[in-house]
Amino acid sequence: MTNRSTLTNDRIEYLKRDYERGFIKFCGLRSVHVERGIFQSKVKITQDHRQQDNFIHAGVMATMADHTAGYSAFTVAAEHMQILTIEFKINFLKPASGIELICRSKVIREGKQIIISESEVFDINRDNQENLVAKAMVTLMAVPKSKLVGKTSDDSQ
Amino acid sequence: MTNRSTLTNDRIEYLKRDYERGFIKFCGLRSVHVERGIFQSKVKITQDHRQQDNFIHAGVMATMADHTAGYSAFTVAAEHMQILTIEFKINFLKPASGIELICRSKVIREGKQIIISESEVFDINRDNQENLVAKAMVTLMAVPKSKLVGKTSDDSQ
Amino acid sequence: MTNRSTLTNDRIEYLKRDYERGFIKFCGLRSVHVERGIFQSKVKITQDHRQQDNFIHAGVMATMADHTAGYSAFTVAAEHMQILTIEFKINFLKPASGIELICRSKVIREGKQIIISESEVFDINRDNQENLVAKAMVTLMAVPKSKLVGKTSDDSQ
Amino acid sequence: MTNRSTLTNDRIEYLKRDYERGFIKFCGLRSVHVERGIFQSKVKITQDHRQQDNFIHAGVMATMADHTAGYSAFTVAAEHMQILTIEFKINFLKPASGIELICRSKVIREGKQIIISESEVFDINRDNQENLVAKAMVTLMAVPKSKLVGKTSDDSQ
Repeated sequence: MTNRSTLTNDRIEYLKRDYERGFIKFCGLRSVHVERGIFQSKVKITQDHRQQDNFIHAGVMATMADHTAGYSAFTVAAEHMQILTIEFKINFLKPASGIELICRSKVIREGKQIIISESEVFDINRDNQENLVAKAMVTLMAVPKSKLVGKTSDDSQ
Repeated sequence: MTNRSTLTNDRIEYLKRDYERGFIKFCGLRSVHVERGIFQSKVKITQDHRQQDNFIHAGVMATMADHTAGYSAFTVAAEHMQILTIEFKINFLKPASGIELICRSKVIREGKQIIISESEVFDINRDNQENLVAKAMVTLMAVPKSKLVGKTSDDSQ
Repeated sequence: MTNRSTLTNDRIEYLKRDYERGFIKFCGLRSVHVERGIFQSKVKITQDHRQQDNFIHAGVMATMADHTAGYSAFTVAAEHMQILTIEFKINFLKPASGIELICRSKVIREGKQIIISESEVFDINRDNQENLVAKAMVTLMAVPKSKLVGKTSDDSQ
Repeated sequence: MTNRSTLTNDRIEYLKRDYERGFIKFCGLRSVHVERGIFQSKVKITQDHRQQDNFIHAGVMATMADHTAGYSAFTVAAEHMQILTIEFKINFLKPASGIELICRSKVIREGKQIIISESEVFDINRDNQENLVAKAMVTLMAVPKSKLVGKTSDDSQ
């Protein structure tokens, strides 16, 4: 059942902490803001995020766009659901070379199973100016957590 | 002018080394095999690549699919060209939870400027069995390196 | 339950006829070949399919890639299921200007609900030579027909 | 050189007429509104646009999303340029079953060669209510018309 009520503070704190684990923690991505249908994240850029030409790697932006979209989907799904990424598409609009990235994701289609979110990634330069550098559309699926334990997604879907 | 001849060993060694820098080195991705129109890479999976549920993060597979596709494009571009990712789309076919990922990319459209490559990501389990877990289509652009120095991609494109 | 057996001749004939209705009939698309996991179609090109510059319109190829992928999904779904397109992405590799298009679709991920297919569109010229002109990845969903009657997809998904 | 000035009335009328040709005319799509960076179109739905289940075919929406995005790109390109679609991705958010579709496209990345546009397709029901039913991201390329005559896009790109 889709949760149409406001998020509790407990749920918001849980999602913020849950966001920052595994590969996401390794990459330094942090959760910033959560509300129903919306999730925002940021990352301070180090040399580890860059390419040989000093631009921020497309993989950093794609990881951020996917993961933040996934957590925007968590905000509209019931608490016993897990969110899986079915697919995403990302356009790189400009090269990013700033000191921080911010990602803003929002749900644009809220179904019981299929959720579609958009992510916009902004490059922040030393003067604190924002530039939209990438935009993604992400197709997600809500699956009961109980169905995922000890199974592959092929079974559960 | 597109380079239709075989790659020299020097060029192959250069591309293999060039592949493994910055964010890609940080993520542990390694180049494996290079021939004209084809690039293959792999990564040994550690806890840093996983999600909270132990599956390999979609961002690892997306980064690998994008970067390896980009280097497949380098194999058909002239040596003074830089390759930029315009966009990509990736479908996640199954969850990956093995000990290694292998990515195989090949050029499917070879233009002077616009190059399209496909990437297939395979999960390798403890019994050395491969499973196709993700597939991407990547649109790339070849831009003379001289145009990129001190410019934004908006200028150069 | 996914049907893992061979398709009956009745089912093949039903899918071939079912393919050629509504907008698809209006566009002149015909079913050609059906087997488990595979669907092929064609269209004879008339002036109605072209753009002002005489190239075949991208919309014809996109319609064909989507619809044929959908019917490849029907070949792996149970007979009481309807197939919906969740999303697709198509790359146009070359302009098409021939006398016929052929589309070959195949299932690359067969789940109970989520099915992923690829479509390749070939341009056939007067000398009967084929050229790959477009390639699509299509995400489809199998939904019981009984759930679709009098409902919107938002309810059913 | 990108044209940063306002569009002349002549250019607006030219683009509106040019929009409605070939396959687009055959499908009944009409141009509605043009300004710099923006193009809008509509289509009155007939039985020819529908599927067997009475929903409007995804191919109609995809054709509209692609073509209207292409004309939004024309509004920011110089007059001697032709616009080609490199690729697009479209998500279908809800089934459409109304009496009219409206498509609103806008440029989100304006480069000299590579232009990215978004298209939103709205279903209009008998009570004149709009529902967003599909959203597309379209990658386009501006190519001098002189380069396209008697050449394939492979040469020109």
